[in-house]
This record gives sequence, C-alpha cells and structure tokens, in this order.
Amino acid sequence: MHNPQLNKHGELQHLLTIDGLPRDVISAILDTAAPFTEVAEREVKKLPLLRGKSIFNLFFENSTRTRTTFEIAAKRLSADVVNLNVSTSSTAKGESLLDTVDNLCAMQADMFVVRHAASGAPFLIAQHLLATGRDHIHVVNAGDGRHAHPTQGLLDMYTIRHYKRDFTNLTVAIVGDVLHSRVARSQIAALTTLGVPEVRVIGPKTLLPTEVERMGVRVFHDIREGLKGVDVVMMLRLQNERMNGALLPTPQEYYKVWGLTAEKLALAKPDAIVMHPGPMNRGVEIDSSVADGAQAVILPQVTFGIAVRMAVMSMLAGQQGSNK
Amino acid sequence: MHNPQLNKHGELQHLLTIDGLPRDVISAILDTAAPFTEVAEREVKKLPLLRGKSIFNLFFENSTRTRTTFEIAAKRLSADVVNLNVSTSSTAKGESLLDTVDNLCAMQADMFVVRHAASGAPFLIAQHLLATGRDHIHVVNAGDGRHAHPTQGLLDMYTIRHYKRDFTNLTVAIVGDVLHSRVARSQIAALTTLGVPEVRVIGPKTLLPTEVERMGVRVFHDIREGLKGVDVVMMLRLQNERMNGALLPTPQEYYKVWGLTAEKLALAKPDAIVMHPGPMNRGVEIDSSVADGAQAVILPQVTFGIAVRMAVMSMLAGQQGSNK
Amino acid sequence: MHNPQLNKHGELQHLLTIDGLPRDVISAILDTAAPFTEVAEREVKKLPLLRGKSIFNLFFENSTRTRTTFEIAAKRLSADVVNLNVSTSSTAKGESLLDTVDNLCAMQADMFVVRHAASGAPFLIAQHLLATGRDHIHVVNAGDGRHAHPTQGLLDMYTIRHYKRDFTNLTVAIVGDVLHSRVARSQIAALTTLGVPEVRVIGPKTLLPTEVERMGVRVFHDIREGLKGVDVVMMLRLQNERMNGALLPTPQEYYKVWGLTAEKLALAKPDAIVMHPGPMNRGVEIDSSVADGAQAVILPQVTFGIAVRMAVMSMLAGQQGSNK
Repeated sequence: MHNPQLNKHGELQHLLTIDGLPRDVISAILDTAAPFTEVAEREVKKLPLLRGKSIFNLFFENSTRTRTTFEIAAKRLSADVVNLNVSTSSTAKGESLLDTVDNLCAMQADMFVVRHAASGAPFLIAQHLLATGRDHIHVVNAGDGRHAHPTQGLLDMYTIRHYKRDFTNLTVAIVGDVLHSRVARSQIAALTTLGVPEVRVIGPKTLLPTEVERMGVRVFHDIREGLKGVDVVMMLRLQNERMNGALLPTPQEYYKVWGLTAEKLALAKPDAIVMHPGPMNRGVEIDSSVADGAQAVILPQVTFGIAVRMAVMSMLAGQQGSNK
Repeated sequence: MHNPQLNKHGELQHLLTIDGLPRDVISAILDTAAPFTEVAEREVKKLPLLRGKSIFNLFFENSTRTRTTFEIAAKRLSADVVNLNVSTSSTAKGESLLDTVDNLCAMQADMFVVRHAASGAPFLIAQHLLATGRDHIHVVNAGDGRHAHPTQGLLDMYTIRHYKRDFTNLTVAIVGDVLHSRVARSQIAALTTLGVPEVRVIGPKTLLPTEVERMGVRVFHDIREGLKGVDVVMMLRLQNERMNGALLPTPQEYYKVWGLTAEKLALAKPDAIVMHPGPMNRGVEIDSSVADGAQAVILPQVTFGIAVRMAVMSMLAGQQGSNK
Repeated sequence: MHNPQLNKHGELQHLLTIDGLPRDVISAILDTAAPFTEVAEREVKKLPLLRGKSIFNLFFENSTRTRTTFEIAAKRLSADVVNLNVSTSSTAKGESLLDTVDNLCAMQADMFVVRHAASGAPFLIAQHLLATGRDHIHVVNAGDGRHAHPTQGLLDMYTIRHYKRDFTNLTVAIVGDVLHSRVARSQIAALTTLGVPEVRVIGPKTLLPTEVERMGVRVFHDIREGLKGVDVVMMLRLQNERMNGALLPTPQEYYKVWGLTAEKLALAKPDAIVMHPGPMNRGVEIDSSVADGAQAVILPQVTFGIAVRMAVMSMLAGQQGSNK
C-alpha cells in the first residue's frame, strides 16, 4: 500500500504518523536535526532556509505549548508564520474542514501544521491535497485525537540517541496512561522501527489499550518489575482532562502505585535517563525529586524538540516540488 | 461633497467603501494588483515595499479568514503586523473607540485595518484622523456591519476582469441574501461604476433591501428567469448568523428554491463563471457539484484577494505623505 | 541586601520594580530611551539591536494595550516575538508557573515580558532563573497585581524629563485611586529616587493605602488644596474592575469631587502638564476638555513608552552575558 507520507521519490511529503515511516527516513530526520541544535541552543541565531515561505499553524484544538514550539522553529528558519485558532473561526459558520483548507491553499500556503481533536484529520487534509494535485503543500501532524503526535515521538528518539548513541542495545520503558496518550503510540512505533530490542509498557490494565499485546511490547502491571534494568524511562502524563468519568484512581492513589519516585527509579540502570513529554503533573505521575534530578532529561527534550521541528519543516518545504 | 477616501491630490487616502470611489481609482487598484498576483501565487516570495511599516489589524469583530488575508498581504509586503482582537481589550474597560485609536496612533501606526460590527466605524476613525491632522495614517475597511466590505468587492472585480477582460458588455447576476450582505452593496457599487450594463439582483423579497429598486439594478424573484444568459453569477452566503428570528425558510427550503444547482446554472451562458465570497454553505445556497465544478472561480477569488489587498496597502502606505 | 534586578557588575539584569532601583540606573534607562524616540516617532524605521533574539510575551492576565506596546518595541528592535496568552495554556492543565518558565527557557528564550495578577510573580521567575544559573535570560515586569508596573513608571519619568528637563525643582501631584494602582507605587518610587522635592498624593481616604504616610509624600484629601502650584498632575484611572463591592462613590459622585476639570487644573501652575496612564474614564477621573486640552501630554506618554521599552529591552538583552 502506498504510504501517503512519502512522495514517489521516497522523500518525506507529509509527516502524519511514525507508524510505517521507514527507518532511514526517521534516521534522516534525526541527522538533519543535529546541526539545528546549534540554532535551538542559540549559538547560531537564525537560518534563511524557509525565507518567504508561509506556514499556517492550523489549530482546531488549543495547545499553546505545541503551537509555540512550531512557531519558534519556523521563525528560526525565517518563515512567515500565521497562527489560526480555527475553533473560533469560519468552521463556526459551518464551513467544512476541507473548504477551510482549500481557502488557505488559495492564500498560497506552503505548509500546514495541524492540531485536531479528531484522529485522522491531518490524514484527511493530506489526502485532499493529493487528490487535488497540490503536491507543493505539506502537512505536519501536531497531534490528532488519541492517534499520533509524531514530532513528539521524533524528539524523544533524538533525545534517546543523544544520550545513549545506539538504539540496538537498549531496554526502554513507557510508564503510565498509555490508553489516552497519542504520544505513546508514536513512541512505540519509533522505538520498534529504530531497532530497540525491548520496549516495555508499564501501567494499570484500565489505562492500557486492549490492543497493547499486539504492539510488539512487553507489558508489565507492576512498575517495580517493569523498571528493573531499563536504560530509558519514558513517563506519560496522566490525562485527567481526557477521562470521561471513568472509574479511576485519585491522583494520590495513582502516585502511590504508579508515580516515579527516586526509590523506584533506583531499580533501573544507574545511568538510566528519565523523560516526560510535559506538562508534568508533579506528585502524580512523577515525584519532583526525580523531575528535577540528575537523571531527568525533560528540559533537553524541549530544546531538541525545536531542532527536530526545524528538521521536519526544512525537509518538507526545502525539497523538490515545493519550489516552483 | 468631499470624498474622505481621497486626499487633495485625488489619491487614495483611505479605503472605506466602493460607493463613490471614482472609476479611475478602482481601475488603478486593479492594475496595481496585477503584478502582485506573482507574489500571491508565490513566484516572487516577498517585496520590501512596506518594510518597517506598522500595520494594525484592529478587529472589533472576530474574523479569522479576513484577518488572515490582510496579515498575509502585509507580511508579503514586509510590513510588521500587530493583531489586536479589540473585543477583549481596553474597550472592555470602558475606553472609547477614538481613545483606542488615539493610543494606537501614538504608537506610530501607519495603517489600521478595521473590522467592526457597527456600520460606519471605519469612517468615524478616518474622520477623526482628518480632524486631528494625522494624514500619514491610513484606514482600510475590512467590513463594517451591513454596510461595506470594499476589498471583497474589489477582489470580485479583479476576478471578473481576469476572466472576462472587459466590463462593458457583461450581464452579472447577484443571487441570494442581499439584505444581510455588506458584500452585495460593494459589488453593486463597483459593477455600476465600472460600466457593467446590466446588473441583476436575484432573491426572495424578504432577503432584498427595500431600497434595491433605486440601486440601478434589475430585480428578479425567479432565479431561473434571472440567470438566463448571464456572464457572471455571484452567489451570496445565507447569513444565518445575522438573522434575528425572522420568518425565514429552512436551509432545505432555501436550497430547493434558491440554491445554485448545475441545472439552474445551465441557464446562464456556457462560459459563465460562478463566484462566492465564502465561507460557503454547501447544500444551502450552492450545490457542491457547482462549487467544485469547472465554472467555479471561488478559490482564484481568494488568491486574487491577497493581490488586491497588497495593492490597496501599497497604494495607501507607499504614497506621498505617508513617509516623513 | 542584594538587589535581584542588578547583576554583579551593577548592570540591569531584570526590570521588576522601580523600588530600590538606583538613580543612575533609572537615568541610564531614560538616557538610552532618548535616541529611540526617533524610532518610536518613526524617523528611523527599525534597528537591528535584537535581531535573532526570542522575546516571549508571557501574559497570565490579558492586557492588549500593554502587550501591544512591548510587541511593537521588540519588533522595532528586530527581535522575534512570541505571544503567549497563558491563561488559556498549560497552566490550565495544572502545570506550575515555574515548570512553564522552565519549558520556555528550554526553547531558548532570551527575555520574558511577564504580566500576572499575582503580586510578585515576575520576582519568583527572576529568582528561579538566578537559582538555576540562567543569567542570560531576562525578566521584565509588565504589571503584577497591585504591586508594580515599572515601565509605566519609567515612561512617566521620561515624559516629565522631556517637558520639565530637571526633576529637582518640581512639585508633582498624583491624584485618585492610589489604593488599587500598581502604577502609583512605581511613580512614587521613581519620583523620590530622581530627587523630586515634593510629591503629593491626592485622594479620598478610602482610596489611599494605609501605608501612604510612610511613602515620603504629602497627603491631601482636598483636590483643590493639593493641586495648588504643582508642575505636574498625574491622574490615575479609577479601577472599577479591581474594586470588590466596596462602599464606593458612583462615577458621577467621584467626578464631582475628584474629577480633573479645567477649573481645578487652573489651580496648578500655568505650564503644568497633565498625565494619565490610560485607559481613561472620561467624565469620571478626567474631563474631556482637560484630556484633549493643551496641557495634556497623555498621547506623548504612549509614544515615549515605546522608546522606554526599547531602552529597557536593549539594555537587558544587549548586555554582557546575554550573548554567548
């Protein structure tokens, strides 16, 4: 089956999900991001790679944090950025998603960064662009429903590679609310593709998706068992706001069983790193002593996230076909 | 009577309405827009014509679509754009419209793009600038109440000229909810001024203004009669959100009688073009087969809209008097 | 005690409050602002002093007016500005203020312009930056609770110096709702530090803070007495929106006793200037004939405010340590 994320030359056309993205494309993104960390860390101020390009932050769901990272990445590539908070926009007047997209295309957009509460919305847009022959316009999924959040997954991979160099000898644990996490799906897909031999998923049965057994991971319902000897601990945020009155533990109960404390972390390898996609619920899924501790690489994740987004944007809008 | 839109040299000082705008000024705007379509269509990336100019998008009424087109046009002219959603601003603290304007003038604005629910607000601002001797600051009306939306009218004229070349042998039909449409008034004024010999207005009596008979148009209450032999069909959006509990048809009833279908469009000339200012209510005032059909020029309207707004902005802020 | 606003070289590290700011630092800011008035008044369009710098407008409380002045000042220094309306952001997901700051730091911010309803929030951020060794990131307080609004105080000083040249022979009156005014505290601190021999505070007992007697000012409860012979009248806005059901006069009653009319202003020196921080309540604390009269310098305050904010930003982000 054709992968809609790649063009006929096998180059990245859209970034919609890490599922099915070939290993060499993921590696190319990480390699491209490496020199951008100099900009992300501000030794170089700005690059002219996307000068004159129009990038639309098309946010159907509010997310200041994610929108900001894309805006910064785009501005550091010298692009023009237009922020559209579409929940308050024409869709309120009954316009369809694809009519909105058609209109923005007619304003000569070069790229859409799309956030949507509905899983699949960025795919729908990418398919529509393909069907209407607009192969010079690119889509980046900035989070769709419970489905995917690929730049988060990619920055996590960049972070792991930065600290651990090689994926092929690692044991990685993903801990917590996998059920409501679009991040976790992207992470599992990326880790598997990059050759991590053992990916563990740790969490209560009520917060793991039923299909978790088919994801090629080892499932643990005991956090102490699951953390033993791991190289990387990837904590997930407890998505209180996505839970609809389910029979769930209180934050205090959750912390007691599933919260990452120094005592539990001591079961991992001594040089294990601790990651979190943010925003953190301190005292719920993670203890402050761990969040601010020497093994945490949570803030470097944010910095690398700018570099990875710069890499994705420059690979998309800098490639053949996007320049007339 | 003095036309407040023109300075003493007969040059464009503000763009407030197409009513009373001389034919040569309208033509000059369309001529100026023509080369900007290269930028609007992105063959040229950016022009430095307004570098260092401060343009304030002063939106007292939310409109993401219109605000975005002005923001893009300004950025492609290299201006600095500041977006002010004034409904959530100082006016909430009881500040008057003109005090807000005075303050923004004191921040050394070069241009205000004004959207306001009250008809006449941009005129009030222009008069105040005149009265206070600030002739280096320009106002563009981006839609005021039911009154005018001149850049929409101008981009419609640009579109007609693009496809039909000459205005003086055309029959143009405006169809639908003229009563609630600020677009329709601008369109009628522009078409008349540019010498279109026959402008038709087609709609139910309840959605036509009582003064329509005095507008120099032919009125039709039968859409099939009205569409016969026309060169241009300009559809209007059914403004559900502006109707206050009036005794109105349901969308389904409206579609049945007034919706533009392929069958009705066949009554127009074979090479007739179909226009719509957006956002469209598909299945209400227009059928999808027409909206996406070969005669529709709805998306080119959007592209030309960027060029026309660039033309207006550069004519205003590039002229004598705006540079000290 | 160490002043957290200054670095070890005695240079400005953050701008948090005028309280305790040495006279030579205040004077340096005013001196730096002077040439920027050429940009604020648009004779020069733009300066490249902060090119490539990332300035975050971190507004936990909405204020379009203040945010706009900082945005314009930053853009005229060629900085990249990212607006964060944080009330609708991650803090809604339970993230702490300092976690939000840590994340933005990891995005390689150079400066935070902070507005917060809680007094002390910008101090907390500055202390956190110090504690975590991030001395290349700067904080500007854009208003915190009832506490301080230092750039407003500084632009007021700039305005007085512009019109009166010397502070050391002036009598200055601050009139109105001192109790709810963060502006008044900054003004009193600045005037005292700059050597104004007589600062008067005029208002009803219910709108003066209990500690006013200890502020080194002369207190008047009779506006006519207080205005006699003053050189500068600084009106305060009646902060209706900050009053919680207190036993207060109606706007009409307030105007009758405390509103600045031409008749009351005639008691001041003939060349006295009238200032107001905006937004004005016309017909409440100030009569329109005074607000728009020859002695009012209310709009020049706004213009000078851009210059002062440019001065503060360029002193902070242009100094040693902020460039790697």
